[in-house]
Amino acid sequence: MRSHTVYKTFEVPDRRAFVRITDEVQQAVDDAGVAEGMVLVSAMHITAGVWVNDDEPGLLEDTLEWLDKLAPPSWKPPANDVAAALGPDPGDFRHHAGGEDNGDAHWKNLLVHHQVVLPVTEGRLDLGPWQAVFYCEFDGGRPKRMVIKVLGE
Amino acid sequence: MRSHTVYKTFEVPDRRAFVRITDEVQQAVDDAGVAEGMVLVSAMHITAGVWVNDDEPGLLEDTLEWLDKLAPPSWKPPANDVAAALGPDPGDFRHHAGGEDNGDAHWKNLLVHHQVVLPVTEGRLDLGPWQAVFYCEFDGGRPKRMVIKVLGE
Amino acid sequence: MRSHTVYKTFEVPDRRAFVRITDEVQQAVDDAGVAEGMVLVSAMHITAGVWVNDDEPGLLEDTLEWLDKLAPPSWKPPANDVAAALGPDPGDFRHHAGGEDNGDAHWKNLLVHHQVVLPVTEGRLDLGPWQAVFYCEFDGGRPKRMVIKVLGE
Repeated sequence: MRSHTVYKTFEVPDRRAFVRITDEVQQAVDDAGVAEGMVLVSAMHITAGVWVNDDEPGLLEDTLEWLDKLAPPSWKPPANDVAAALGPDPGDFRHHAGGEDNGDAHWKNLLVHHQVVLPVTEGRLDLGPWQAVFYCEFDGGRPKRMVIKVLGE
Repeated sequence: MRSHTVYKTFEVPDRRAFVRITDEVQQAVDDAGVAEGMVLVSAMHITAGVWVNDDEPGLLEDTLEWLDKLAPPSWKPPANDVAAALGPDPGDFRHHAGGEDNGDAHWKNLLVHHQVVLPVTEGRLDLGPWQAVFYCEFDGGRPKRMVIKVLGE
Repeated sequence: MRSHTVYKTFEVPDRRAFVRITDEVQQAVDDAGVAEGMVLVSAMHITAGVWVNDDEPGLLEDTLEWLDKLAPPSWKPPANDVAAALGPDPGDFRHHAGGEDNGDAHWKNLLVHHQVVLPVTEGRLDLGPWQAVFYCEFDGGRPKRMVIKVLGE
């Protein structure tokens, strides 16, 4: 059995972005010398994900908007007496009490999932013709790591 | 280490359907001659998924309806002056500008996930008593492929 | 190739809860004697999940509330003539016709996913500093099983 581990660091300037990584994953499989096996691609952060889908810019833009509908970013109400009279802000997060502002990114991690396992057959990622692999950043602007682990023979 | 790869093609007449595949996955494990390991079951399309849940018809029907609430199919407003005056259609997708109409199916793929990894113990899928494996079609009416990869010894 | 299988039983008194299991998964890796490989952590029930995220109580409480928004528990309308006149209850589930009341828990299973695959490097779970592993109970009050399967060398 062979195994091979590669770490990648992303520093995405935007808060949210999809970064295509299919070639990097194939490179890890090549370097592993594995013909038959599986490769695990896993974000090492709790506000990022990995998605396998279509590398079509319209779809990716649609998807960021849609994820914001299911997992809305927090908002702060105007800091005035009327806002205070409304009581606790339902748009805000307990998680933000300590100064964080990325609660929605944790939920985008949940929806997208932080990892995928891909099949390797005859030394190639065994993907369909439209399947591209994306690192999904939901709280960018700082370096974040991902691990690729190849297992097989 | 043994590995074994099987491809299945589905041609589901309906746009959306759950197709139970537990027996086909077990058959691949049998053919692999693997007693201890893992099996990856992965749709090779970006508008399909794989789900492990209950083979209860009411639940499956409920679930298709619920997925439509979270990831609604697109709609076209009436092509008249009033619709035009309303401006851009929020129910529609950038992804559809090229003639596609399956944006919602990409999001159902995201929610359900396109793959699962199942444990194999003593030659059997090591599932709970109510866990059935389903291929989930969200844009049917054409042949679509899935790969089963068994790894173990 | 080595493999090692461990079963855990949870009996969570509450209907819903996150139970941190990182140490139990690391223990299974230790007992497997695997230095390089993967570990599959998989709920054996259709109303539970496994999530890798932050062990921050505010976030976990936020997340249970948010999951209730995406996958609301069913409700029964008042059993009177007005309710009957309203016709079928859109808040209820076909799945509940047989007496079940846990339709929402099946959907939380779908959103969270019932399993994860974690990398093992140099004998350790190869997780980021904030990644904790949780068993996610969505229909507790009874014993439920989870399987941990380690594969590697």
